[in-house]
Amino acid sequence: MTHLLYLTENDRGLERWRTEITKIDPNITIHSLNDHYDPESIEVVLAWKPPAGIFPTLTQLKLIQSLGMGVDHLFKTADRPTQMPIARIIDPDMANQMSEYSLYGALTAFRNFHRYRASKTIGEWNPVPRNFHDEFAIGILGYGELGKTTAARLQQNGFPNIRIWSRTPKEIPSLKSYAGTEELLDFAKNLDLLICLLPLTSETESILNRTLFDQLNPGAYLINAARGEHLNSADLIEAIESQQIAGALLDVFAKEPLPKTDPLWTIPEIEITPHVAASTNPRTAAAQVVENIRRIEAGKTALNLIDLDRTY
Amino acid sequence: MTHLLYLTENDRGLERWRTEITKIDPNITIHSLNDHYDPESIEVVLAWKPPAGIFPTLTQLKLIQSLGMGVDHLFKTADRPTQMPIARIIDPDMANQMSEYSLYGALTAFRNFHRYRASKTIGEWNPVPRNFHDEFAIGILGYGELGKTTAARLQQNGFPNIRIWSRTPKEIPSLKSYAGTEELLDFAKNLDLLICLLPLTSETESILNRTLFDQLNPGAYLINAARGEHLNSADLIEAIESQQIAGALLDVFAKEPLPKTDPLWTIPEIEITPHVAASTNPRTAAAQVVENIRRIEAGKTALNLIDLDRTY
Repeated sequence: MTHLLYLTENDRGLERWRTEITKIDPNITIHSLNDHYDPESIEVVLAWKPPAGIFPTLTQLKLIQSLGMGVDHLFKTADRPTQMPIARIIDPDMANQMSEYSLYGALTAFRNFHRYRASKTIGEWNPVPRNFHDEFAIGILGYGELGKTTAARLQQNGFPNIRIWSRTPKEIPSLKSYAGTEELLDFAKNLDLLICLLPLTSETESILNRTLFDQLNPGAYLINAARGEHLNSADLIEAIESQQIAGALLDVFAKEPLPKTDPLWTIPEIEITPHVAASTNPRTAAAQVVENIRRIEAGKTALNLIDLDRTY
Repeated sequence: MTHLLYLTENDRGLERWRTEITKIDPNITIHSLNDHYDPESIEVVLAWKPPAGIFPTLTQLKLIQSLGMGVDHLFKTADRPTQMPIARIIDPDMANQMSEYSLYGALTAFRNFHRYRASKTIGEWNPVPRNFHDEFAIGILGYGELGKTTAARLQQNGFPNIRIWSRTPKEIPSLKSYAGTEELLDFAKNLDLLICLLPLTSETESILNRTLFDQLNPGAYLINAARGEHLNSADLIEAIESQQIAGALLDVFAKEPLPKTDPLWTIPEIEITPHVAASTNPRTAAAQVVENIRRIEAGKTALNLIDLDRTY
């Protein structure tokens, strides 16, 4: 019997995880913070935005298993044991959802749907010249699981002109690869569409800012499906007002739910979704969690561990 | 030297057709209605919504070449010589554009973007449960070039649950096929998304009506990228008001440009584009027109002829 603690901001999702995990291994017990549980029995936490005050009580903890692909939420908990291994979910279903979301945004920009929505609000029949795939330059920030799947999906749908930017140089024959801070502005130069799929770290925070926007083609489009903190939203609003950016699709925000008073809600050129670009699906991800629990029980290293120094 | 007449409602597009056609064959001369031309020299017309009064003067005419995939516009010209062969454009680029447009609409419906747009207008953060591909039933009306390409594109993007409806039965292993009036309501039953890509004929006019809408799943989505006359728009408005239909993407209208006073403009759940789902591209289509001209000169039958009795 292995004891897990569901260590999240609320118990939403608990029952689905419990069902899927115990379906695979009935010897795993998942406790909620609201249950009576013995803190010294807990070997693994399933964590999403964990509240403070719990980690110090878990003296037998062996693994922090993030319930999402991102782990930035864990670095905001002050009392997290800093040397404790952190595993993240690498879920093909999530990468697929994310590439689908990005494709929707790419089609919006490429086919000018954002412009037709604006025309509709004033009842104007105003065809704009069509774009051609080979001339439409797309840049993807981040080339992990999400960036990879998204680039492939865009290529499958006829977009040949794709650049990627990542921390370390990549060699991919069909993509133009850029790496590191020194190549960031070159990467962004004359893009028609910029897609952010980066992990959030101190290096990538506020990467979507005015300096970057100024590199894009006038009338470019932005998709942010990574983390709200990647975006300087005042800079985006300014870029939209100056028409340097024609529209944006945003799924993530520094504060979620996005407060009622946030000006982003009121800007017609911005499409907003409530952090739904890719949701972890316990149905497809539970097997990974169980595998990690078995490895911990057997004294082995968990899969999909992050680099604690690099924070992703 | 073969003489063509550009017989359209206006001369928009004339120069691009002239450039692309004479690039392939400089011995072809294209006349505009505004030129001085000898009506008895004209052997082929390039037609789009041809004005009345011209056909009777073209005594040497051998072919009506439609400048689009659809030919319904030709059957509205009263003085068209009724036995004159009509060829249409079959352009892979157009089918590709159409499938891309349909994919955008499918992603809108599947990922609930239409609902998030509505939430945005009232500043509401309201995630809705996700859909799953295998449970999301898509029906395509029409299985010609456009329907075929669209079904394939949707399958490539992970939608396995696709039905098609056409005049005559089709046998396609990966699709559920329905045919004829007697199977139309069965086809539509519990669809989550209905896409109309039919040719316009007397049989298909007003096919998108209340009876059909009532068969769909409540909250279904409609895409019409065929012809405005396929849709009974009063029925659509009623279906949206009753929430039987949650949203629609419309590219075509009985009267174009859609008049300023048309109520479709004012319904938030309807996305409107100005007949841009697929535009003929002279760059890719000119070769087909030239091939037909050569065949006519050689006394052969043109390619892509329609069935004059069936009117498509």
